[in-house]
Amino acid sequence: MRKGVTFAAGFTAGAAAAGVKTGKADRLDVGLIVADRPCVAAATFTQNQVIAAPCVVTRRHLAAGPLRGVVVNSGNANACTGEQGERDAVAMAEAAAKAIGARATEIAVASTGVIGIPLPVDRIGRAVAAIESSADGWDDLSRAIMTTDTRPKVAEREVWLHGKPVRIGGVAKGAGMIHPNMATLLAFITTDAKIDGAAAQRALVAATDASFNAISVDGDTSTNDMALLLASGASGVDAGGDAFEPFVDALTEVCGELALAIVADGEGATKVFEVRVRGAASAEDARAAARTITTSNLVKTAIHGADPNWGRILAAAGRSGARVDQRRASVRIGDIDVFAHGAPCRWDAAAVRAIFERPRVQVAVDLGVGDATARAWGCDLSAEYVHINADYTT
Amino acid sequence: MRKGVTFAAGFTAGAAAAGVKTGKADRLDVGLIVADRPCVAAATFTQNQVIAAPCVVTRRHLAAGPLRGVVVNSGNANACTGEQGERDAVAMAEAAAKAIGARATEIAVASTGVIGIPLPVDRIGRAVAAIESSADGWDDLSRAIMTTDTRPKVAEREVWLHGKPVRIGGVAKGAGMIHPNMATLLAFITTDAKIDGAAAQRALVAATDASFNAISVDGDTSTNDMALLLASGASGVDAGGDAFEPFVDALTEVCGELALAIVADGEGATKVFEVRVRGAASAEDARAAARTITTSNLVKTAIHGADPNWGRILAAAGRSGARVDQRRASVRIGDIDVFAHGAPCRWDAAAVRAIFERPRVQVAVDLGVGDATARAWGCDLSAEYVHINADYTT
Repeated sequence: MRKGVTFAAGFTAGAAAAGVKTGKADRLDVGLIVADRPCVAAATFTQNQVIAAPCVVTRRHLAAGPLRGVVVNSGNANACTGEQGERDAVAMAEAAAKAIGARATEIAVASTGVIGIPLPVDRIGRAVAAIESSADGWDDLSRAIMTTDTRPKVAEREVWLHGKPVRIGGVAKGAGMIHPNMATLLAFITTDAKIDGAAAQRALVAATDASFNAISVDGDTSTNDMALLLASGASGVDAGGDAFEPFVDALTEVCGELALAIVADGEGATKVFEVRVRGAASAEDARAAARTITTSNLVKTAIHGADPNWGRILAAAGRSGARVDQRRASVRIGDIDVFAHGAPCRWDAAAVRAIFERPRVQVAVDLGVGDATARAWGCDLSAEYVHINADYTT
Repeated sequence: MRKGVTFAAGFTAGAAAAGVKTGKADRLDVGLIVADRPCVAAATFTQNQVIAAPCVVTRRHLAAGPLRGVVVNSGNANACTGEQGERDAVAMAEAAAKAIGARATEIAVASTGVIGIPLPVDRIGRAVAAIESSADGWDDLSRAIMTTDTRPKVAEREVWLHGKPVRIGGVAKGAGMIHPNMATLLAFITTDAKIDGAAAQRALVAATDASFNAISVDGDTSTNDMALLLASGASGVDAGGDAFEPFVDALTEVCGELALAIVADGEGATKVFEVRVRGAASAEDARAAARTITTSNLVKTAIHGADPNWGRILAAAGRSGARVDQRRASVRIGDIDVFAHGAPCRWDAAAVRAIFERPRVQVAVDLGVGDATARAWGCDLSAEYVHINADYTT
């Protein structure tokens, strides 16, 4: 059973077609998530120095107190739009607040799409006013936030805390400009757990670090990344104390499922590869090596073509900034050692090729220096990625 | 008149077919550059932590004293080849030394090609022994070092110092795994200037920083990058003192011409774009922003498709680590302002598209923070790049 953001008690959702992008009048492109009471909220935002207006406005609204809902549009990022962009993001919040009977500062605002084009805020406002949010609206919402995504992405988990069930549900969109840093391009998670603001923020940061921040589609960090957690408390079950760890685990599972769905649906992607790094001098080194391997165009094209060119994997680790001892390093593809303790192994090219041809590929690298580890996920680079992105705005 | 590395007095060159890559027995794939006397030498090497054996051996030989020549092969990088790799690189130097009547430590060794495969050093040794180097051998040499390069790359300049002519000539190869850091994938520069070792090193570092280190094809730094300068002194003209600056300028021009030739011949490239960054807080920031823009897959695909999606340019600057004040930043494409002082401009999409359709594209970004500047060059990302790299080793 899929219910996305309406899986947890206290939440409804809905979407409408505002014609944000000219010539796409029928496409669902604005959405609402509505809480039936003020929610504890936590969020992580893009680390890009160029920050879209909705992120700026949402950060301000989070600081002002609990949230009652989220308004989101696709088709236009409202980024690099100057002061008008901030006014437009506030106007979106006002339209949503009016529709659900809340204050504008109780609304989070998110946008995704093309950068640098003024938002058609009047059309969005009229469409938002017409949305009737409901428990069944999760599916429309999950489609309304898609851009080049080929399918909606939802996940949910029930976790028992203190012997009682707590629900966590989420929705995300991804596809391109995906190399999140503290968050991903639009993920909304709802829960009916009772949790205080500081704990909610800690939980969300832990979950995003192990999920959204470990994936990459193209190495480009968006201006609009936002992961938002709303906790209604409607279950009456407290997620603090002993219950915090299992709550974070369940939250991480929801975020992880959404993150992997984003990589698998990366623009032009035909397969996902997981990189496990060990033997690093520090966690930062391990993470840098894993992330650099997942973003290397040469690794991504080799995996795309099932070309057993493993040297590119070690070369990417070597340029990542992480310390590498090439006389002790090792590389393993699936269960085949191709380079061990600083020397190339004898290996069967056909066997490595067969592993690279799978939809899920595992790569492990030992940097030969220390004992820190990291994991990251990437997707292959296909000619289709080029075709999608060579003609995006038109 | 093209003469490449034999343009300067005191140098000859030659090449042969060693069958380094199985099934390519007829292809020129080993080369020699020979100096008629011991040369002052300077070099910059890859900053990749995974360093190929020839770089390790050449660094050792440079420390031992003047050089008499260079031996180079394509088709195999002799990288990630363990201790055997170092022995093989030394064996290449020994073969070249024997052929030209020098000591092995007077020979620089360079390799380019696939990583992780043992070098067929016996075949290479036999081919090196058969090379007859000559003043006309520069063209064969320039072809012997090519991998996925579609054309050879040579450049030369004559510069007058103290009223007398000094010659500088060079050869380079590039095409893929090009994101040099202190050097590029194989550039050999010869000059007949008289210059001491410290000045030669300073001159080469200055020239490479403004040329090879400012270009990117795919963001992947090779394990084998090497730029080498040999100064024979055969002109009898001293390049020190007042003559140093004009010498560095001429050297930078040679390196710059080779660097641009590498970008223009980038794997699958159909056009070159130049990024000028200004308004940066520091030279490092300016350089980081310029380099990140040239490596962004989203910028590269937009330029490939002539899609006027300038927001990707500012987003790349924003994730580069450089400080950006988005309320004061500006973006200009060719001579068209698309974003000025933090607000989008009215611009004509057809005009921007027309600029993106040119073989040379200029992009300028003002970060709105300070007054540091930088320049960098990149190429577009095409489906052809994917096709080349999805099936490289086979």
